[in-house]
Amino acid sequence: MTPQLDNDGKLRHLLTLEGLSRETICGLLDRAGNIRDAAMGRTQKRSTLCGTTICTLFFEPSTRTRSSFQIAAQRLGADVINFDASTSSARKGETALDTLKNLEAMGVRGFIVRHPEDGAVQMLSEHAGEGTTVVNAGDGRSAHPTQGLLDVLTLRQAKGPDFSRLKVLLVGDVKHSRVARSDLHALRTLGVGEIRVCGPAALLPDDETLAGCVSGDDFDAMLQGVDAVMMLRLQRERMEEGLVASLDHYHRDFGLTEARLRLAAPDAVVLHPGPINRGVEITDEVADGPQSLVLRQVSNGVAIRMAVLEALLG
Amino acid sequence: MTPQLDNDGKLRHLLTLEGLSRETICGLLDRAGNIRDAAMGRTQKRSTLCGTTICTLFFEPSTRTRSSFQIAAQRLGADVINFDASTSSARKGETALDTLKNLEAMGVRGFIVRHPEDGAVQMLSEHAGEGTTVVNAGDGRSAHPTQGLLDVLTLRQAKGPDFSRLKVLLVGDVKHSRVARSDLHALRTLGVGEIRVCGPAALLPDDETLAGCVSGDDFDAMLQGVDAVMMLRLQRERMEEGLVASLDHYHRDFGLTEARLRLAAPDAVVLHPGPINRGVEITDEVADGPQSLVLRQVSNGVAIRMAVLEALLG
Amino acid sequence: MTPQLDNDGKLRHLLTLEGLSRETICGLLDRAGNIRDAAMGRTQKRSTLCGTTICTLFFEPSTRTRSSFQIAAQRLGADVINFDASTSSARKGETALDTLKNLEAMGVRGFIVRHPEDGAVQMLSEHAGEGTTVVNAGDGRSAHPTQGLLDVLTLRQAKGPDFSRLKVLLVGDVKHSRVARSDLHALRTLGVGEIRVCGPAALLPDDETLAGCVSGDDFDAMLQGVDAVMMLRLQRERMEEGLVASLDHYHRDFGLTEARLRLAAPDAVVLHPGPINRGVEITDEVADGPQSLVLRQVSNGVAIRMAVLEALLG
Repeated sequence: MTPQLDNDGKLRHLLTLEGLSRETICGLLDRAGNIRDAAMGRTQKRSTLCGTTICTLFFEPSTRTRSSFQIAAQRLGADVINFDASTSSARKGETALDTLKNLEAMGVRGFIVRHPEDGAVQMLSEHAGEGTTVVNAGDGRSAHPTQGLLDVLTLRQAKGPDFSRLKVLLVGDVKHSRVARSDLHALRTLGVGEIRVCGPAALLPDDETLAGCVSGDDFDAMLQGVDAVMMLRLQRERMEEGLVASLDHYHRDFGLTEARLRLAAPDAVVLHPGPINRGVEITDEVADGPQSLVLRQVSNGVAIRMAVLEALLG
Repeated sequence: MTPQLDNDGKLRHLLTLEGLSRETICGLLDRAGNIRDAAMGRTQKRSTLCGTTICTLFFEPSTRTRSSFQIAAQRLGADVINFDASTSSARKGETALDTLKNLEAMGVRGFIVRHPEDGAVQMLSEHAGEGTTVVNAGDGRSAHPTQGLLDVLTLRQAKGPDFSRLKVLLVGDVKHSRVARSDLHALRTLGVGEIRVCGPAALLPDDETLAGCVSGDDFDAMLQGVDAVMMLRLQRERMEEGLVASLDHYHRDFGLTEARLRLAAPDAVVLHPGPINRGVEITDEVADGPQSLVLRQVSNGVAIRMAVLEALLG
Repeated sequence: MTPQLDNDGKLRHLLTLEGLSRETICGLLDRAGNIRDAAMGRTQKRSTLCGTTICTLFFEPSTRTRSSFQIAAQRLGADVINFDASTSSARKGETALDTLKNLEAMGVRGFIVRHPEDGAVQMLSEHAGEGTTVVNAGDGRSAHPTQGLLDVLTLRQAKGPDFSRLKVLLVGDVKHSRVARSDLHALRTLGVGEIRVCGPAALLPDDETLAGCVSGDDFDAMLQGVDAVMMLRLQRERMEEGLVASLDHYHRDFGLTEARLRLAAPDAVVLHPGPINRGVEITDEVADGPQSLVLRQVSNGVAIRMAVLEALLG
């Protein structure tokens, strides 16, 4: 029993995709799919969450993800407050839990939490009162479940609902990536036929993260015939830590170019969670090319977050 | 005649609780009490201030108080803009008054102002145009009137409306505390039977602030039989200024522990304005224990701020 | 054909006032004039942009202009998100264009953009998708069109619609000022009789910016008989760059005092885009005096921005 489900098996928080049933995941994808077209047009603002206050509580800065959640909440009619805990009460020595309990006492019912430490968001959710829900917007290297959901929604839109025939390749710094972990959870649960993982040995995890995956560091070989390439962002810190020799080296070995993309299936699609390092893990031609679904992912992100907030708070 | 009342004696700004009549204070507490239960549930959003723009204008950072006012304003249907003057126009050399007059010219009708200097908020209110109201969200060491109101509302909920039989103890750095001053104003006006004040001699004021109070530095003695203990936050600056030897010393002499709390009346309640320094002025057991009203205070804070904004702008 | 008009000559973005027809400019002024009185009162909130998300995307900090646009958008019923690109994704190496395209994919329909580089906002507008509009909130030294519009609206309210009989004097650092350039564009198009420009030689442009203007560095001489004095803010950087000897020197030669103002026409009006450097380019007596329209400009700014957003998105 994962701590994000209530006694009836219904989703009460969204902390991770790990352990979520295929039915639950597909239910959220369906709901987001329905919202998508309606939600993107103006005058489509809903009042589902009118009178509900939602707080983005970020212990790590991220304007992009925060904006996506904020727009999703606004489109549902909610009031949103942004609490940048990386520059406020945290400095006064208040614990993350006290911050959450205080905002909850002010009437906040939905928390969108990002935290640099693994498990911190789950810990917070365990102390949330009745009627309060917590959505993990990324914790440590562990999970970023709405990113995982929007990635598989994008894949499903492009390739149809039968994932068993797909070969999907994940490329980059999987070891430090919460996006990769949530992608892997979702891809496995949805029954992807073959999951391949590729990156420099120093950036691949050596634990059960890759269970069931084909992994290696030969990008060209791994690309052969795949239906989807999911690129990861290379954090600059990896250079400073000595895990990557240089951006040039990384690009040479793991940068997705048009030439390389031709090794994949002719109708292969390319995903990237953003923000993109153009010329590092991906070239302009690929990022902006016809096989790229990067902006579609961003669009789907709002729909997925609306679906999650509606499912948890509606 | 205090500058916060109009010619009919009606509240026009809220700058301080000093000099406010018992009737005015009780009127705000009653209004907040009525709002409270209704306001905390969703779908209870009001439209009282629909079309009114309210600005949080903070010359000193405080995410927590700002969030409480923002939620209160949103629940009344107002539009809110947050103007962090500690990092914006102030840097360009604009005066606080010019900033306020500019925002007023943009159509802002309610200003929630925090300022590090005593009297700065009153000065601003004196220049506010007709139809514009100013709420003091804390100025210097002088006043933090909504905190004072929420504290006495919390006390009234716990102990009933007759304050004359109560013994209330205020503990900590009263000298530098605007919270303490506003608490003392409210407690006196509501006729608390006995007000005691306790803290290190260096942190107690030597002026008329403590008029009518029993004061001293023997925490155990002061705790005997009190009905409420109102703890204050210890600012770390006091150590740097040499006014407090160390956190350990402070905790030993003025930290509220379970053992000490047993010296108070059996049904004594504990208040703290937050954010709490756990293990310094209060232990986890007391802060999270059955006698603590800390989160109830936070909750009442939104109701009090709704009541104040509604009274001033509604 | 300027890139801000569509094939029918209708305004699609607002990038600059240069090249806009008198009809288009007057249309926006009329619309703002109609909005003004209605909009300033409460309960006058409109629902024109209900369900539309507008993003203030600032690559250069400016709380004041951002607040004015935010209030304008809220009064039209829009949802607003503030994206401070000077401290967020930009640091992660994302390009301005990728940031805009991402926010557009999230459903943002209106972008209010400020950028330190000339032409950056136009470049962004050229990549905006169908149905997305871009408003220039100031780029480099090039243009700040809503400031130009609010300045001529203020002038029209004070002096009537016939600009041909007016003598208008622009004073200060015209060389580095986008406000001055947009003012000049609007004043010329509206047919001002005589445009004078005054400032230290080092701060006057030596290109076609001043075409058709009388220019010079003798402030007293230039003031003779003018109907309006439009002061510019002196940026402190000019001292560091050695373009201005000192604030005292600048004030002595180009500060607007009561004595100097008497050289202008008796009913001359004074404008300043703010924030004011009191005692540098303008004295307290003039800034707060009966001929000053400074706060009226700020008020008109909200009306102009409402008119622009409504025209582009309504």
